[in-house]
Amino acid sequence: MEEQTIRVQRCETKKEKPQDDQLSFGKIFTDHMFVMDYSEPLGWHNASIVPYQPLQIEPSAMVFHYAQSVFEGLKAYRTDNGSIELFRPEKNMERLNRSNDRLCIPPIDEEFALKAIKQLVSIDRDWVPHTEGTSLYIRPFIISTETYIGVSASTRYKFIVILSPVGAYYKEGINPVKIAVEDEYVRTVKGGTGEAKTGGNYAASLKAQELVAQTGYTQVLWLDGVEKKYIEEVGSMNVFFKINGEVITPKLNGSILSGITRSSVIELLQHWDIPVVEKRISIEELYEAYQRGELEEAFGSGTAAVISPIGELKWGDKQLIINDGKTGDISKKVYDTITGIQYGHMEDPFNWMQNIETESPVKH
Amino acid sequence: MEEQTIRVQRCETKKEKPQDDQLSFGKIFTDHMFVMDYSEPLGWHNASIVPYQPLQIEPSAMVFHYAQSVFEGLKAYRTDNGSIELFRPEKNMERLNRSNDRLCIPPIDEEFALKAIKQLVSIDRDWVPHTEGTSLYIRPFIISTETYIGVSASTRYKFIVILSPVGAYYKEGINPVKIAVEDEYVRTVKGGTGEAKTGGNYAASLKAQELVAQTGYTQVLWLDGVEKKYIEEVGSMNVFFKINGEVITPKLNGSILSGITRSSVIELLQHWDIPVVEKRISIEELYEAYQRGELEEAFGSGTAAVISPIGELKWGDKQLIINDGKTGDISKKVYDTITGIQYGHMEDPFNWMQNIETESPVKH
Repeated sequence: MEEQTIRVQRCETKKEKPQDDQLSFGKIFTDHMFVMDYSEPLGWHNASIVPYQPLQIEPSAMVFHYAQSVFEGLKAYRTDNGSIELFRPEKNMERLNRSNDRLCIPPIDEEFALKAIKQLVSIDRDWVPHTEGTSLYIRPFIISTETYIGVSASTRYKFIVILSPVGAYYKEGINPVKIAVEDEYVRTVKGGTGEAKTGGNYAASLKAQELVAQTGYTQVLWLDGVEKKYIEEVGSMNVFFKINGEVITPKLNGSILSGITRSSVIELLQHWDIPVVEKRISIEELYEAYQRGELEEAFGSGTAAVISPIGELKWGDKQLIINDGKTGDISKKVYDTITGIQYGHMEDPFNWMQNIETESPVKH
Repeated sequence: MEEQTIRVQRCETKKEKPQDDQLSFGKIFTDHMFVMDYSEPLGWHNASIVPYQPLQIEPSAMVFHYAQSVFEGLKAYRTDNGSIELFRPEKNMERLNRSNDRLCIPPIDEEFALKAIKQLVSIDRDWVPHTEGTSLYIRPFIISTETYIGVSASTRYKFIVILSPVGAYYKEGINPVKIAVEDEYVRTVKGGTGEAKTGGNYAASLKAQELVAQTGYTQVLWLDGVEKKYIEEVGSMNVFFKINGEVITPKLNGSILSGITRSSVIELLQHWDIPVVEKRISIEELYEAYQRGELEEAFGSGTAAVISPIGELKWGDKQLIINDGKTGDISKKVYDTITGIQYGHMEDPFNWMQNIETESPVKH
């Protein structure tokens, strides 16, 4: 397929931008968005950057009925030297296509999509906030738009990218959270959609999250859906435990999301010669390690927080206080390094960052 | 809460209606739709019947990202005496609220929603087709519309009802289908959303359906997600087996949808003193019954087909030909009776039908 050109229609009046210290997450959107359509036999076409605006969608559009939708989340950071950079965005595009495959959505051209994202961010570059810890959140997503309510894969889609300036996740420094092990609800199961970043996975998680929040905990720790025994994820993050000097994270088993921050953490630990292993770990094993005094640290990893230390873990009537409820050394070092690379304070030995003005896959 | 009034805005020009013999499923929609909004602190409000039209929805609306959406499906039938009737619609409203609860969507007033559906069907009554086997499909659904991409339950929703005239499912008489047992993909699992009618369940089912269609089978038979051993559903229908004179259907276990046709089949069989039991049944047990020559009939049940006889079942390399690939006596009798009641050819001993001109819950 010949590469498409991206039509650009700029907005006539720009919105007022919020102050950096008033930013939260995901409620304010920038001046422009990227939209591309899919239909047969054209394939993906009509790539456009247009003013941010409502969609006109028929009530019979499939996305409203059968949730055939996938998404990604990544961030643009303003670095110390003033450039705007993305963190491993090619990984998001790869995962988007894996999600597409699971939900019978036609694949996108990953390089072209990344080029579109860079151009969109470049046009709205004034929206990338300046304060340490802030960023411009990028939300690519695909929805099924065929006007048909039979249960089948859609023949029409929209690929859309919207941008939202977000505040610092930790306004007063990295801070541990309290997590409760979920023993009733299940996020997903092997053979399901857990590996894919589909809307349905998140809809399914709301109830457990709502119930746990009422008990004073921040997120749930998900166990596997088959035996309700093995640790999978924490909230919408991957999870790591340091036990007796070794860092353990659940092995990707078909129901765990392959997090990009997760793989970055693993690569960093390996780079530092800190023992790290991906393996199946049960909640019982974790508790036994805790009883032996060997559970030294626990943390979640994800795009939003980067690292979220776990200070307390509730499992039934058992309460595990980890590292005296404080952020552990590894958690802190990983957090400082990844954010240091993202904001350009530190060297980028892995070539993780991509300048938005540079063509992929050539990196700066 | 005081009962809302329904504002009615009729369309100025009516669409052309298709001929009954050209009707298929779910592609054509009528002149009007029902819409009601939810926001806090108002609750459900702004109930309106308006011309069928596209929705204006922000790209940041939650439904596009986290699939917080539920739906129902039921039909309006034109009966022999010219009245238009719904089949057990109060059951759909009950189930809608159970689905709402699972996905953290605020409950609807079931009686009011049913009243709205009746009024909408009444306004578009000329769209209810006349030919035997045709009907007007009713699709109530709820979508989350808050413009926020944080993972949490939405604070805004739309409840929408659209109508679509549908052709006869069996144009040349009830006809058995070929089904293949799915052993890789999983529909859902206990603790997941399988009991609820959520968009995400259907998105998750597309891949298996697409693959099975390539091998010449119509639908998949879903096994449980835990042991991949016990029979759950067939495609998007519930399933029944007649073994040695007894009709067996999988017991509702937390991952099986509580079908309204399913419960109607059970009630009918009990009424006829035909042994019927809800219990866990494994695919091995079914195969053993087949080998003993005791698997006499198999059929799916659902709103679309009412009864879908299963003539062939493929399980790995085993091929089960059921009742010589023909429609069984029980399948036929259940089908004839339910459709007979729906179209007013037969008495309705259970008071299943509700006239659209009659207030619920008072039945005709």
